[in-house]
Amino acid sequence: MPELRKDPVVGRWVIIASERGKRPMDFPHRSPVLHGGFCPFCPGNEDKTPPEIFAVRPQGQRDAPGWQVRVVPNKFPALIIEGELKRRGVGLYDVVDGIGAHEVIIDSPEHTRSFADMSVAHIATVLEAYQVRQLDLAQDYRFRYILVFKNHGEDAGASLEHSHTQLIATPIIPKRVVEELEGTRRHYEIKERCIFCDIIDQERFDGRRIILETEHFLVISPFAARFPFETWILPRRHEPHFHHVGEIARLDLAGVLSTVLRKLNLALDQPAYNYVLHTAPINTGADWHFHWHLELMPKLTKVAGFEWGSGFYINPTPPEDAADYLRRLELGPRDAD
Amino acid sequence: MPELRKDPVVGRWVIIASERGKRPMDFPHRSPVLHGGFCPFCPGNEDKTPPEIFAVRPQGQRDAPGWQVRVVPNKFPALIIEGELKRRGVGLYDVVDGIGAHEVIIDSPEHTRSFADMSVAHIATVLEAYQVRQLDLAQDYRFRYILVFKNHGEDAGASLEHSHTQLIATPIIPKRVVEELEGTRRHYEIKERCIFCDIIDQERFDGRRIILETEHFLVISPFAARFPFETWILPRRHEPHFHHVGEIARLDLAGVLSTVLRKLNLALDQPAYNYVLHTAPINTGADWHFHWHLELMPKLTKVAGFEWGSGFYINPTPPEDAADYLRRLELGPRDAD
Repeated sequence: MPELRKDPVVGRWVIIASERGKRPMDFPHRSPVLHGGFCPFCPGNEDKTPPEIFAVRPQGQRDAPGWQVRVVPNKFPALIIEGELKRRGVGLYDVVDGIGAHEVIIDSPEHTRSFADMSVAHIATVLEAYQVRQLDLAQDYRFRYILVFKNHGEDAGASLEHSHTQLIATPIIPKRVVEELEGTRRHYEIKERCIFCDIIDQERFDGRRIILETEHFLVISPFAARFPFETWILPRRHEPHFHHVGEIARLDLAGVLSTVLRKLNLALDQPAYNYVLHTAPINTGADWHFHWHLELMPKLTKVAGFEWGSGFYINPTPPEDAADYLRRLELGPRDAD
Repeated sequence: MPELRKDPVVGRWVIIASERGKRPMDFPHRSPVLHGGFCPFCPGNEDKTPPEIFAVRPQGQRDAPGWQVRVVPNKFPALIIEGELKRRGVGLYDVVDGIGAHEVIIDSPEHTRSFADMSVAHIATVLEAYQVRQLDLAQDYRFRYILVFKNHGEDAGASLEHSHTQLIATPIIPKRVVEELEGTRRHYEIKERCIFCDIIDQERFDGRRIILETEHFLVISPFAARFPFETWILPRRHEPHFHHVGEIARLDLAGVLSTVLRKLNLALDQPAYNYVLHTAPINTGADWHFHWHLELMPKLTKVAGFEWGSGFYINPTPPEDAADYLRRLELGPRDAD
């Protein structure tokens, strides 16, 4: 019997179509092809990107080789940084000028090394770069939200193969975040508890959807997973903002992210994926009921008319099966450490 | 300057990134490849689908050739038809048994004829089949919504190339529909008018986003289009339910749909697309403020981390440009008429 399950935070229903019961080997596998050719993110090509905003650089000069992580403005930004925020109406409609920031975090100087294959220490440095940029942009009074996300592989929307993360600062809190905020606020008003903290307690008690657990993090296949092998990394300590995570937890997170990505690579043969950092808004105040986390979605199925029309998702892999598979998977030694 | 625009009904913001200004020829073109081989939807293979629920059949017997349009249960249904609707809790979480209907409308007996290339009279027959099934399923007290949608082309999620439409009846009103209902209700409470009727008035007055207009329909690129060349077909007469559309308007809609699809085929070189019929819920009552319409989305860009994380969309083609292009496009004679 398939089940309709409801995400307790945003109220999104999904169909867990267990009759279709897809195992990892049932998904078409399309490993990313390395195209080679010219890459604007490689060391030596620093003049092919806009001037850098930030870099972790043990040696060398600004906009020259020697960096480990480099942050530059997106050359084709969706939003632009200069200008005042003007809100206006056009008859029925509402418009805001497209003010914002659109940055690219180049994860490493190595063109062919994927995020999963970097050392834990290096991943921690990339995570710290996210925080540095979030803290800096949070000082701009025009912005309400800073979204950090990674598209890995062509099927997940990556247009360049050199490992990178994107950051977009927006003058409006995105709809999806507003829904999460409303969900966490509603639960708090009724229970005086954080709903993500409650989810963590229930998942630890139940155990069937746990992929991994460390001192600071719980990794689960969420109860109402939209996609096969959707994976959430939840900090066990309540904290609204990702940029407040300290050095020790950050290193733990880097290890967790590395393990999760390597498990997914092994289970699903190097899938394309997206991950999105869900963190509280900035310059608003009332967000202490929010609980930051990271949502990771391997790109295995196509979103089609049903999902567009309904906001419903059909997931052919029950999260209990995905978690069980990933939990049991044994990893070999990490060659980057 | 890019613009942030808000959909006036559901409150979804989109970034219209006009600096990136994509014209039709800028999109990668991947015409569907005809694979041939065995097709369970072709005449003569009626025994390879579950027994038919409905057919338009000028000649021949049930589950045998001679039909023009044939409706069968999906062989791999996301929801199943038998059983009582049980709602239950699992700790924090909400679950409903996966009761529902999942049907396939086989648009025509011809394997290689795409929907755009069928005669207007035949398309009208397919639309009537949607209505027949909606009316029948609406009598099932367990259902709250009947979603009709088409995935055309592999990139849009179609797994079989023989032209078909899908129908899913759900025991819950999908989130996306709830948002539209709330948006139309809110506007009605403030203005005592339908927001879609207001949109039609404003678009007809403005004119820049009109693709086509007939006696019964207005076709526009919506102001806050999520995707390049997203196209909405709006009935000019207020009506909540698609299944109430009569014969004359249905024939007009078939002509409009045919023209729109042929224009998109010419402009974008046979793109994959999804369309979704947005109609009012069933078995609920309070839905007279809803205004049925059809939303059509050519699949030209990939939805990536930013969209998943934010619910925001980045659209590189301003709807005014898309509408202007499609409006001016001259079509040759239709070979199927």
